[in-house]
Amino acid sequence: MKSEIIAVGSEMLTPSRQDTNSLYLTERLNEIGVTVSFKTIVGDRKKDLVGVIRNALARTDIVILMGGLGPTEDDLTREAVAESLALKLKRDAPQVAALHARAATWRITMPENNLKQADLIEGATFLSNPNGSAPGQWLETTYSGFRKLIMLIPGPPHECKPLFDDECLPRLKEIVPLRHLARRVLKAAMIPESQADKLLAPIYTAYSDVETTILAHAGDIQLTLLCSKSNEELAEQRVEELATKLEEALDDWMYSAEGESLEQIVLYYLGLRQATLAVAESCTGGLVAQRITSVPGSSRSFLGGVVVYSNEMKTIFADVSAKLIEQHGAVSSEVASALAEGIRKKTGATLGLGVTGIAGPGGATETKPVGRVYIAVSDDQKTDAFERNFRGDRNRVREWASQQALDLVRRKLM
Amino acid sequence: MKSEIIAVGSEMLTPSRQDTNSLYLTERLNEIGVTVSFKTIVGDRKKDLVGVIRNALARTDIVILMGGLGPTEDDLTREAVAESLALKLKRDAPQVAALHARAATWRITMPENNLKQADLIEGATFLSNPNGSAPGQWLETTYSGFRKLIMLIPGPPHECKPLFDDECLPRLKEIVPLRHLARRVLKAAMIPESQADKLLAPIYTAYSDVETTILAHAGDIQLTLLCSKSNEELAEQRVEELATKLEEALDDWMYSAEGESLEQIVLYYLGLRQATLAVAESCTGGLVAQRITSVPGSSRSFLGGVVVYSNEMKTIFADVSAKLIEQHGAVSSEVASALAEGIRKKTGATLGLGVTGIAGPGGATETKPVGRVYIAVSDDQKTDAFERNFRGDRNRVREWASQQALDLVRRKLM
Repeated sequence: MKSEIIAVGSEMLTPSRQDTNSLYLTERLNEIGVTVSFKTIVGDRKKDLVGVIRNALARTDIVILMGGLGPTEDDLTREAVAESLALKLKRDAPQVAALHARAATWRITMPENNLKQADLIEGATFLSNPNGSAPGQWLETTYSGFRKLIMLIPGPPHECKPLFDDECLPRLKEIVPLRHLARRVLKAAMIPESQADKLLAPIYTAYSDVETTILAHAGDIQLTLLCSKSNEELAEQRVEELATKLEEALDDWMYSAEGESLEQIVLYYLGLRQATLAVAESCTGGLVAQRITSVPGSSRSFLGGVVVYSNEMKTIFADVSAKLIEQHGAVSSEVASALAEGIRKKTGATLGLGVTGIAGPGGATETKPVGRVYIAVSDDQKTDAFERNFRGDRNRVREWASQQALDLVRRKLM
Repeated sequence: MKSEIIAVGSEMLTPSRQDTNSLYLTERLNEIGVTVSFKTIVGDRKKDLVGVIRNALARTDIVILMGGLGPTEDDLTREAVAESLALKLKRDAPQVAALHARAATWRITMPENNLKQADLIEGATFLSNPNGSAPGQWLETTYSGFRKLIMLIPGPPHECKPLFDDECLPRLKEIVPLRHLARRVLKAAMIPESQADKLLAPIYTAYSDVETTILAHAGDIQLTLLCSKSNEELAEQRVEELATKLEEALDDWMYSAEGESLEQIVLYYLGLRQATLAVAESCTGGLVAQRITSVPGSSRSFLGGVVVYSNEMKTIFADVSAKLIEQHGAVSSEVASALAEGIRKKTGATLGLGVTGIAGPGGATETKPVGRVYIAVSDDQKTDAFERNFRGDRNRVREWASQQALDLVRRKLM
């Protein structure tokens, strides 16, 4: 079955706001075998809305409208759906009472206008919204002789998502022909971009019944495999087969077959080896530490880190000798190694990680361009340093460098 | 004039991809007085595309199609536009030559299929694309008796944005009636959410000719004021007048009237006072350091930081005494102060910042819930510590805490 998601609200047509609910809804819909064929974003003008709703009804089976259910004059979704289908709106007495009760608990007097949230489209039922005042609506109807399903759900993400999960999905599952969705997520780090597609495309294009999407960002690629079939076993088998071939091709670039982040995997291996990690960062400025500590429970394996921008700080916090810095420059393989060794010894961690580089836009020298980064990993046996050259602006270089640093720690632990 | 932006590509109907080019285009279009009335996302099916294009032509004056201009069979935007308007496609000889030349410089033999990128819609002109192989197209035509403008531009952001700026905007400016857009961006930190709207709405709603959008995220609000008028002076005057009133209401919550980030402002004040900053972070795990160092040139005022998760690290890197931690707990106002003082003395910075708290999901105690954070700012005169309680998951708490920490440094410097 084909669906269209319509995000309603003039603010989503400005340069600073974007509908993101639809990504969540799409994932949920795909899981039960419903395709999203169109997404439309429309402002709070009733004429525009009515046109958009009629277009959607003409081209899809399921129409989901998000937003425009609030109490203000700009909230016109109810009215527009009713007009599109020449249906009446009727004020619902129990819902009016519920709105009054809600206002009472908040100790506010409710403006008369708020009562429009109790207007129910002829033939629709309310969808309960425990996180806001405006209930959703569910309408099964016909349009030009075809059966159509229309959902009106609130726009704020913390209202939209639970309402969709709790009220819409169970009802949808009863209507949509049962499909099983098999899903696998593979992740790989630092695979050269030119190689990724050359390597992977010949494999996944041979599986036309598995939808493979590739998301690439700063040294990280994520492959999502989706296969929807009425036969569950067959769907799982097809995804499994393709995943196995892709895993082989990705070789040791692959770090996760379950969707975990690279920092989660690093922490997993640290736990497995009963090892600890400490980091000394220059150009990444705390990004590596921040990524690791974003994972709950990271304190078990991550001892801490230092952000050492200036030469003095490298000496104070990671025991890098001033002479070494003078001799090789702060951005050098030697200083990266000294940072890794210094922070390891100072903290007593099993592994030390050192990162130094030129994130730009300033700081380049004749021999060291913007994007040059040295990363070193040290344990009690030895210290390995790596030279890398990343392209892009300051933030890109920092993202790539943090990804490369985490991946080198992963490889060290494997 | 009304416009519609159409993003073409099945990948943008998946849960993991989203059109973001349209935000950029919207900003550029708004600046010359063109409103975006609709945004549509459609997959790579010609029938769907033709329907979407016809809808757009029926309801707007300017239709911008992004994507679907590449060489593969899925790239159908040219064909769909031609079909929608019953126009012919003609292979353009100079463009064929250009494609061959481009392939030659890359030392690759070009597949025959690639030549479809040289197909020009009848009446259209090519828009040069120095960053990719597929040129854009510019078409002025009529639809149902009305004048319409259609642009076909490539989808990849690094091709789309420069092409739009260099090729589309200058042509658009000649067609669109001259409007002047006055624009101001105000930013404020840590203003209580409930207060923001109550305070600001009565002010900006009185200026119906100024479009005010408010973007709120983890203790940061951004107000964008836009006013488009044929009279430049009047547009500027209206925005200025509203901005002045809002600035007064925002009082010292406001940190920027020019759109700078909070970390930029902190660095600006540090520079102004010839002061330096060092940070010792526990629960924010490097996020404060990472935000500050994301600004180019931050090394001039930011000496460095330590990420001290464990008690031992607090002692090693920030000279916090083990006894103090035992006495008050690692998450306490006293330890926050000791972190701030310790890092200040250890680095010789003018200001020291200490952050300790419970980001969750684990770690809560009977007296200290998840979200409890202590932040201290220290100079050579005194150390002030603050207790805060933030709501949300681990990442939300960390974001709020880093925002509050930066704002406290800003207030100290003011």
